[in-house]
Amino acid sequence: MKKYMLAALNEAKSAAAEGEVPVGCIIEKDGEIIARAHNLTETLNDPTAHAEMLAIRQAARHCGWSRLCGCNMYVTLEPCSMCAGAIVWARIDKVYIGAMDPKAGACGSVMNIVQNERLNHIAEVETGIMQEECSRILKDFFAERRSRQHKDTKQYSANENTEESK
Amino acid sequence: MKKYMLAALNEAKSAAAEGEVPVGCIIEKDGEIIARAHNLTETLNDPTAHAEMLAIRQAARHCGWSRLCGCNMYVTLEPCSMCAGAIVWARIDKVYIGAMDPKAGACGSVMNIVQNERLNHIAEVETGIMQEECSRILKDFFAERRSRQHKDTKQYSANENTEESK
Repeated sequence: MKKYMLAALNEAKSAAAEGEVPVGCIIEKDGEIIARAHNLTETLNDPTAHAEMLAIRQAARHCGWSRLCGCNMYVTLEPCSMCAGAIVWARIDKVYIGAMDPKAGACGSVMNIVQNERLNHIAEVETGIMQEECSRILKDFFAERRSRQHKDTKQYSANENTEESK
Repeated sequence: MKKYMLAALNEAKSAAAEGEVPVGCIIEKDGEIIARAHNLTETLNDPTAHAEMLAIRQAARHCGWSRLCGCNMYVTLEPCSMCAGAIVWARIDKVYIGAMDPKAGACGSVMNIVQNERLNHIAEVETGIMQEECSRILKDFFAERRSRQHKDTKQYSANENTEESK
């Protein structure tokens, strides 16, 4: 189980290296990783390009069919409502989650879409897989971004002062 | 308002002609239709290829930015949780809906994701736009599919009987 979350975490690291919010996801079937993806919303200018969505599309191409029965998802951050909805449509068996997302999570935090009995599929959920590492990469990313923005603001203020002093 | 829903309904008709569940969607900004799409889940082997998702991705490409502020969506069937989640991420201003979906709708039927105050965007919703036409195309599609399946079953039974009588 840990080896699959490690693969998802590697995807999250690729996202961070590309300046994307570091979330990674893999889909496993019969012990084989059939899809690997990371968040690409900024790179692709596409609000739907979350790691889970890209992985589901990749896995569906791999299987040649849009229902992914027998597949498990490993994702570093709790899926949002969009991704949780896609998990239901794709009939993913089980979702293994690293860190929870109290702001937008839809597998138990803000809502629980993957286990809503009024929908036509229920996915199993297991949380807390390598939670510390999955959470750390997000915290580090946002801390670095804040610090860069702070530096930019200081730089900007310095330029403003220079302008004013001309 | 009706002219935009008519454009969405034309997309739904294209879906039906391609053997896809007939749902169509357009996105409008400043009076211009910037995205038109219909359900393509079967054609693309992609459980995420709902009309709304394809339209959002198209509109984001058009705008060159993944947030679609100032955009309105017209969709023939109430968006599901996946599409409703995407509407929230894309910051669509207002969603105009044709028919409601009591089985999977996430704009008021099974749940209401686009107006969940814990998420970071609330979209306005207006329902019942050309409801009769939007509902009719779905009913006709499923009635025809059932009738074709029934014919196939009869054909199959006839063959079975022939086999048995050999």
